[in-house]
Amino acid sequence: MPVGAAAATAVRQASLREHNLALVLRHIANAPHPPSRAAVAATTGLTRATVSTLVDDLITGRLLTEVDPTPRSGAGRPALGLVLAGHGPVGLGLEVNVDYLAACLVDLTGTVRHRAVRRMDLRPVPPADALALVADLISEAGAEADRRDLLLAGTALAVPGLVTADGVVRLAPNLGWRDVDVPALLGGHPVLAGRGLTVDNEANLAALGELHASSAADSGNFIYISGEVGIGAGIVLHNSLFRGARGWSGELGHVPVHPEGRPCRCGGRGCLEQYAGQEAILGGAGLTGAPVARLVEAAERADPVACQALADAAGALGVAVAGVINLLDVDTVVLGGVYAPLAPWLAPPVRAEIGRRVLTAAWSPVTVRAALLGGDAAALGAAGSVVRTVLDQPARWLARPGR
Amino acid sequence: MPVGAAAATAVRQASLREHNLALVLRHIANAPHPPSRAAVAATTGLTRATVSTLVDDLITGRLLTEVDPTPRSGAGRPALGLVLAGHGPVGLGLEVNVDYLAACLVDLTGTVRHRAVRRMDLRPVPPADALALVADLISEAGAEADRRDLLLAGTALAVPGLVTADGVVRLAPNLGWRDVDVPALLGGHPVLAGRGLTVDNEANLAALGELHASSAADSGNFIYISGEVGIGAGIVLHNSLFRGARGWSGELGHVPVHPEGRPCRCGGRGCLEQYAGQEAILGGAGLTGAPVARLVEAAERADPVACQALADAAGALGVAVAGVINLLDVDTVVLGGVYAPLAPWLAPPVRAEIGRRVLTAAWSPVTVRAALLGGDAAALGAAGSVVRTVLDQPARWLARPGR
Repeated sequence: MPVGAAAATAVRQASLREHNLALVLRHIANAPHPPSRAAVAATTGLTRATVSTLVDDLITGRLLTEVDPTPRSGAGRPALGLVLAGHGPVGLGLEVNVDYLAACLVDLTGTVRHRAVRRMDLRPVPPADALALVADLISEAGAEADRRDLLLAGTALAVPGLVTADGVVRLAPNLGWRDVDVPALLGGHPVLAGRGLTVDNEANLAALGELHASSAADSGNFIYISGEVGIGAGIVLHNSLFRGARGWSGELGHVPVHPEGRPCRCGGRGCLEQYAGQEAILGGAGLTGAPVARLVEAAERADPVACQALADAAGALGVAVAGVINLLDVDTVVLGGVYAPLAPWLAPPVRAEIGRRVLTAAWSPVTVRAALLGGDAAALGAAGSVVRTVLDQPARWLARPGR
Repeated sequence: MPVGAAAATAVRQASLREHNLALVLRHIANAPHPPSRAAVAATTGLTRATVSTLVDDLITGRLLTEVDPTPRSGAGRPALGLVLAGHGPVGLGLEVNVDYLAACLVDLTGTVRHRAVRRMDLRPVPPADALALVADLISEAGAEADRRDLLLAGTALAVPGLVTADGVVRLAPNLGWRDVDVPALLGGHPVLAGRGLTVDNEANLAALGELHASSAADSGNFIYISGEVGIGAGIVLHNSLFRGARGWSGELGHVPVHPEGRPCRCGGRGCLEQYAGQEAILGGAGLTGAPVARLVEAAERADPVACQALADAAGALGVAVAGVINLLDVDTVVLGGVYAPLAPWLAPPVRAEIGRRVLTAAWSPVTVRAALLGGDAAALGAAGSVVRTVLDQPARWLARPGR
């Protein structure tokens, strides 16, 4: 009977410093008010001398900065408060989707320092050419980081498809990509050199963006549904992204809702995408090829064809979502991508299907709401995932040559 | 932006001992051959003196035992090997299901030391009476543990339903249980006193049993499907049970496969259970109320009605399972409960639906197989979950008064 899967090692001195650097940084990041060094020592159980050494290293590494003391009662000189530094590392987030490219820079405090979106139909564009356009966005963001004296910590790229651990896009059906080796095509970019490039599914990264943007009061258990030409899902459980065995979880668009229904691009039949994907909804509303904003306008003036198309799509979406909740037991459904502006019409039928089909719904209500972030949620989530890595492993950042 | 959800504390001396006790025990449990104290020191990076102190404590606590040395080359007296003790703590596993009760004792080495199954229809039995029958099984198992001088480490009970964190069975639709407070009804049993009683979903615990019984060479990512009157699923990812936000994951039986199809006990329509539950299959085969063995016999003689009923059920099961794999990205489907003896007829159509509907199936094949454990898998998994707790937290076991 094997006990524990990961290789285990004893706790030693070096890893203790790593552990405590992360502990101090996490404590300061989560504190409701900027804590003093003494307050950090009191809460973490570390000595004041240890905390001071660690804090000095984190300030030198531009991960922390000191702010004016908040007034306090009691005698003595008030102590400086500690906050995450906005002038240090930033994450570069990128997204290639079916009808846009996006880029952004996010700093440790979560502030967006740069944002660019290019709207265009990427379907006719070969992958190498699309990535050349991404390279331009990288150059622009790199120049912006230099201009503001920000340090690029790493880059993450979101794509609407299945990505291997090595960053190869195995299949992005709606972009028409197959086996596209993104690191080979982009990794040589001078802005990225030696700083790390990860590639991930766009719904996963958008879910991370939503997690970072949402309130700490939320339960941290939700499915983020990215409605675009395809339908992806990012599953967040206990504040962590759930990736599945090989990182290929969340293909909600190919969950069957009518087993012998419409044929799908994937080779299956009756996939959700054929009933609730962007093109299916626009087609049903008689707006094939139109922007989603046109559908919103039609729904706002209660156009019966548009409203029926939205109700049909929402019914199919609700059936699939009810299955997800029965399986995964999440308490919140976040409607993202084009579903966000359509949420006023989609959410009520989705809620009705959940109420009808989810075993626990009677005593454990499920929230269905629009996403907090807009169209570039995945790029923001990608940048945030880089920032998170720095916050989780500050020792690695501090040790980086030529930081 | 909150960083990390759990409260964090500094690494200190006391937790270092806890950590190292668990480290040593895990190393010995996973070693292919009984390692010596010196070998444990070499692999863990701890000093020989520290390892000897920890090992002595673990031997005194009856978690480890020494065995004769395996012959070795080199000079000097050969060292004793260390193995998990079979004569120390045991877990008591229990199960209440629709048509049987089961109990077993499992020791640290995974050996089953006691096993009892009572076949009966529990549906007409009120919950308190059913639990009184369970109490008899507990007394019997407790007497057996005493007779063999085994130490009861704890008890886990499996039920086919939704269980709260406090052990209350919120809903077990096929048993007809609602809000049954199992700890209140069973917790006073003298055999259990002070030793802990957990209550969990039977598919979850059966999945744990399957995980413990399966080879270390397996990927540790599977969905265990418990086909009984209801259909539950236990989801194992990276060798861990995935419980969902509130512990209510895995309600596969209520995933819709024909959205406007047959009405279900749950209030929904077209739930998988109505097409692939035990009663649906037996009904389709013209064997309503018969034992599943009769259906197996009919299928073995290629009875066309039985074979069609199995193919229909398997088709519905395959549709739901394809959705699960698209969502969760598991590489193995384990057919448990009554599905295990029916696997020769169910597995091929399930594989066909997966091949047709799962986006990654073309390059990433999915295994569909019968469960390794028999009908009392959940009771075995329940006992194993108790044993696992002891192995994961040996310091807690060593500190237990009157152990």
